Amino acid sequence: MQASNDILPATGPAIILVEPQLGENIGMVARAMANFGLSELRLVNPRDGWPSEKARAAASRADHVIDAAGVFDDLASAIADLNFVFATTARARDNFKPVRGPVEAGRALRARQRSGQRTGILFGRERFGLYNDEVGLADEIVTFPVDPAFSSLNIAQAALLMSYEWMKSGLEDETKTNFSSPDMMPATKEQLHGLFAYLEGALEARGYFRPAAKKPKMVDNLRAVLTRAGFAEPELKVLRGIISSLDRFSPAMPRGDGSPGDDPRRLPAAARAAKATDKDQA
Amino acid sequence: MQASNDILPATGPAIILVEPQLGENIGMVARAMANFGLSELRLVNPRDGWPSEKARAAASRADHVIDAAGVFDDLASAIADLNFVFATTARARDNFKPVRGPVEAGRALRARQRSGQRTGILFGRERFGLYNDEVGLADEIVTFPVDPAFSSLNIAQAALLMSYEWMKSGLEDETKTNFSSPDMMPATKEQLHGLFAYLEGALEARGYFRPAAKKPKMVDNLRAVLTRAGFAEPELKVLRGIISSLDRFSPAMPRGDGSPGDDPRRLPAAARAAKATDKDQA
Repeated sequence: MQASNDILPATGPAIILVEPQLGENIGMVARAMANFGLSELRLVNPRDGWPSEKARAAASRADHVIDAAGVFDDLASAIADLNFVFATTARARDNFKPVRGPVEAGRALRARQRSGQRTGILFGRERFGLYNDEVGLADEIVTFPVDPAFSSLNIAQAALLMSYEWMKSGLEDETKTNFSSPDMMPATKEQLHGLFAYLEGALEARGYFRPAAKKPKMVDNLRAVLTRAGFAEPELKVLRGIISSLDRFSPAMPRGDGSPGDDPRRLPAAARAAKATDKDQA
Repeated sequence: MQASNDILPATGPAIILVEPQLGENIGMVARAMANFGLSELRLVNPRDGWPSEKARAAASRADHVIDAAGVFDDLASAIADLNFVFATTARARDNFKPVRGPVEAGRALRARQRSGQRTGILFGRERFGLYNDEVGLADEIVTFPVDPAFSSLNIAQAALLMSYEWMKSGLEDETKTNFSSPDMMPATKEQLHGLFAYLEGALEARGYFRPAAKKPKMVDNLRAVLTRAGFAEPELKVLRGIISSLDRFSPAMPRGDGSPGDDPRRLPAAARAAKATDKDQA
């Protein structure tokens, strides 16, 4: 049975499993593919036949990949319509095939895809991988940078890594993420120095900078610590709220029970100024 | 039980599983780690306790990772000795944490490792991931560039991808592979043109370039095809052997049965020259 979408242009490399042994692994491959935008799965002579309930179950929500999978009697038929094929292998073969790492391979597949080529990636049997003559049917080899002393990626893991590199190759910027952090540019120096003024005033009032000769160095250290952190404006607001709480209240007279700290007319000038500009103190 | 190697400098990030549910997943994580040179596994309150035979079995040859795994009652203890921690998560959280992709995260971990920092990566529960307060204990978030419509990496897959990016971050060149193809630089123009001369001589003798007016174009096409392929010297030897076989023998008088083609004195001059220089013809 040919893959049902062999008339449409491919949207990514076909993932081709050669004589996969376990249905669960086929399902895991489908699941890996779906996470990274691949949908064309081809099976060459699966050991336990097809369809496979174990594969469907292991695929979880990727059953659309399972349902569309093509099954072939031999490898040559499975790759007949492809222009370019990678073979995954962990060990060197004595042949002329160029060897790529997965990053390079992902980029090569993406470039070929963009120029209209149909591509595929071969994965071998759980125990034995691909035979030399099967590697011979491919164009190039892709191998993963595993620790040679412990090299045991299974087909689902290898398919996951190649699917991931495929996805990455299509990102404008490989640092792109599905969501990002809020904008954390450091606050302006005016905002930062405003915090320093408030904090240093509260500390001075408490005799922190003693003896007087030590004050310049202590101020310097305090400012260095609070500068290197690179606080953004929302973070400065949080800090100002903390300092305000420490400054205006005490365990004996906490905020909200009519203590002097609640009365803005009783605030130190710096805190009053800060309070007036704060929209949301802690 | 603290990780047994907490006195030695770390060789890579600790992989920390928060309330992992299935022993098989813990084993798969260990196996993913071992492939990419990581060995420090920490488990926070594993659901089914510890040790776990299922984990050991699924770890396959990575049982050294399983045996050295540290078990902790809570997350705070599991990360107490670390200087920097990533939390993996698929969905945005309303917080101040910087968000990185796995490539950036791998590089950040490597840079910190090199400057002597101890690092870790948190992975959440199979069903629920990490809770917000657990993400809060980390420094930064790492998220994978999955298809948002189908986002279902399990902890073993997430650990595999992070372990892989860790390994890659330590390679001088991310295209580096464990083995490489033989040197395939294109043959020199002298070698290539030597092949052209031989081939064109054999074809001319067979009346291939007819009519005569077409010959320049036909020669041009032939040379263009054999040039664009970029054959390396070993490949040219293979081609020369093929041409030689076609030129000197026939099905009626194949090589090795005393046919005229076997007698070097009967070779065309170009083939004789080629034969003299070939060490190993096909």
